[in-house]
Amino acid sequence: MKAEILTIGDEILIGQITNTNSVWIAQELNLIGIKIVHMASVADDEAAIVNAFNNAASRADLVFITGGLGPTKDDITKKTFSKYFNSELVLDEKVLAHVSSFFIKRGKEVTEINRNQALVPKDCTVIHNPNGTAPGMWMKKENTVFISMPGVPYEMKAMMAETILPKIKSENALPHIYHKTVLTNGIGESALSEMIEVWEDNLINSNIKLAYLPQLGVVRLRLSSTGPDKEALIKNIENEIEKLKGIIDTYIFGYENYGEETPSLAEIVSQLLREKKQTIALAESCTGGYISSMLTGIAGASEVFKGAIIPYTNEAKHELLEIDEALFNSVGAVSKQCVEQLAQNVLKKFGSDFALSVSGIAGPTGGTDEKPVGTVWIAVASKEKTLAFKFIFGDNRQRNIVMTSNYALNTMRKFILKSL
Amino acid sequence: MKAEILTIGDEILIGQITNTNSVWIAQELNLIGIKIVHMASVADDEAAIVNAFNNAASRADLVFITGGLGPTKDDITKKTFSKYFNSELVLDEKVLAHVSSFFIKRGKEVTEINRNQALVPKDCTVIHNPNGTAPGMWMKKENTVFISMPGVPYEMKAMMAETILPKIKSENALPHIYHKTVLTNGIGESALSEMIEVWEDNLINSNIKLAYLPQLGVVRLRLSSTGPDKEALIKNIENEIEKLKGIIDTYIFGYENYGEETPSLAEIVSQLLREKKQTIALAESCTGGYISSMLTGIAGASEVFKGAIIPYTNEAKHELLEIDEALFNSVGAVSKQCVEQLAQNVLKKFGSDFALSVSGIAGPTGGTDEKPVGTVWIAVASKEKTLAFKFIFGDNRQRNIVMTSNYALNTMRKFILKSL
Repeated sequence: MKAEILTIGDEILIGQITNTNSVWIAQELNLIGIKIVHMASVADDEAAIVNAFNNAASRADLVFITGGLGPTKDDITKKTFSKYFNSELVLDEKVLAHVSSFFIKRGKEVTEINRNQALVPKDCTVIHNPNGTAPGMWMKKENTVFISMPGVPYEMKAMMAETILPKIKSENALPHIYHKTVLTNGIGESALSEMIEVWEDNLINSNIKLAYLPQLGVVRLRLSSTGPDKEALIKNIENEIEKLKGIIDTYIFGYENYGEETPSLAEIVSQLLREKKQTIALAESCTGGYISSMLTGIAGASEVFKGAIIPYTNEAKHELLEIDEALFNSVGAVSKQCVEQLAQNVLKKFGSDFALSVSGIAGPTGGTDEKPVGTVWIAVASKEKTLAFKFIFGDNRQRNIVMTSNYALNTMRKFILKSL
Repeated sequence: MKAEILTIGDEILIGQITNTNSVWIAQELNLIGIKIVHMASVADDEAAIVNAFNNAASRADLVFITGGLGPTKDDITKKTFSKYFNSELVLDEKVLAHVSSFFIKRGKEVTEINRNQALVPKDCTVIHNPNGTAPGMWMKKENTVFISMPGVPYEMKAMMAETILPKIKSENALPHIYHKTVLTNGIGESALSEMIEVWEDNLINSNIKLAYLPQLGVVRLRLSSTGPDKEALIKNIENEIEKLKGIIDTYIFGYENYGEETPSLAEIVSQLLREKKQTIALAESCTGGYISSMLTGIAGASEVFKGAIIPYTNEAKHELLEIDEALFNSVGAVSKQCVEQLAQNVLKKFGSDFALSVSGIAGPTGGTDEKPVGTVWIAVASKEKTLAFKFIFGDNRQRNIVMTSNYALNTMRKFILKSL
């Protein structure tokens, strides 16, 4: 089955609102094997809406419409909907009772404008809105079902979950669909694609689609497959992921399972520490608190995160973390020696099981021929062992900070797992 | 002028990525008086892309396309673009030089796949991509200009700001439009709207539109006006802002001028310190590095930011910042006494001119009847003076961290300006 998602509202077109409804609906439909072929946003304008309806009908079996159902004059979806279906608006007593109780419960009077919310096209199937006053509408034209819902996310979501998705599932024999995403760090998109080219070319024989989803310091590889047998799909994709591990195992730091959020490197490291009941402390120079804020953004951070020192000047590195002053004039603060000392000393200061340190040139200025902007040293330490690594990222400050943070967290992940 | 925004990529249609590019582009176009009539998202599929191009051409003068320009096989926008314009792909030497230098700078080899990034339709105007390897493409078909950009937001934004928007403005006689945004902290959206109700109702007489743009801990008020005389527009808006200052001066921390990025509180504080050649140090407990990362995200941070300590445990507060241990059992770490000591001691440790400290309960757990989740103490200190303030925010951890950071930075701004 093919679906289209249509959002109606001027506030989307002027960029005042981010369209999160479409993302949520798309995720829910994917989970039940419905393919979204198109998404569109149009203004509160009759001609634009009718045109969008016609285009949607030409390519989709199901059209999910949100927005434009409010009681004010700028909301014209319902009027346009009934016109499109040549179905006059009639008062629905059940909806009117719901609308009335809604206002009475809140100690408010039911006005004429509110009563109009109970008008629906004569031939439509009404979708109950448990969280609001605008009813949903389900109508069929030729082979396409149109489903109109309010734009308020929590009203729309309740209607989808309670009525619309169950109705679609019960009325249709849907194919199964399965995705799994492989998370990698330490290699760029194009180098990765060259490494896995032969494997990728063979995926077509397994009926699997591959997508590259690059982020800063992370490339996600999503494998998707559709078919009649769910177990076979899962087995097929897991089988291909096993083969992929044989090629790029060293770069894989996690997986995003079907229907779940992508775990961040900070979450993966925190989870590892939590399982082992171990703790971490940080000495962040060039990342200036970014890694700490990623780790402390996670609920329950205090179980694993002891704290950090951000010694942004050489003076602070010396005074707060006892970095040998002679070192600044010899190898400099962006060096193996400096990050090693930072990691070892912050480990002692906080009495943590692990320590992570970074020192680098985030940019845009401060680079030299020998150490260009983007040069970063990362060290990891435990009581037994200290290891340091050098990286050269780009010339954009913000990107360098995020990339350094992801590389540092993945280095720590491997260190905790003793795979460095 | 009418515009359409088209995003290409399976990851949008399966709901894996929220479409933030469209929002940003819509905002930028609105700022220069261009109306967005349609937004659409389509799959990495030739027929779907061509169909979307045709539909867009039928209603828009400008079509902004993002996505599908990566070097991998799933990205087919460029191939489809050249086919649509009957313009063969040729190697662009300038782009190739840029792509090559991009990889060489990072110590990487230029592979065949990378070289292919320098292929562009023969008849297109190439848009330089300063932050990446995929060039943008500008082509006209009949009366519609098509502009194709990469989907990576920071690459797209730089190309829009540096090349595309200036080109559109120089080639078209757009109506004058002027915006100025007033930045406030310390008051919520509805309380603010009640305070300024009379002033707001009068704006209609000055042909000014007002928009409330709430963020975490910050409410922005955007005044916009369109007309034939640019100087009159500016004078008119400045005049109304003067009146507004008479009502809510204490909450205003800055302004966003027409066509500029919103200055963050971190930028405003950094700029103040830079002008005064003064420095800051932080002791961040509940914000866990978030404020430091905001300050160090700004180029040249090392001139004003000496460093920070993130003492996430009571033990660390005592050992690294000499917080009186008795205090933890009496008033607790989330207290006036604790943040005052944190600010005073971190000031001494780093030898900075100012210090900022925070201690609170970010949540979701850890609250008590007396100190619910969201309770935060903020202190500011100089050699002469220490002041502390208590706030109670909400029950969402991420929101509490961001709100605390914005309130803390605004408190520091007022302290530097001696207006506390």
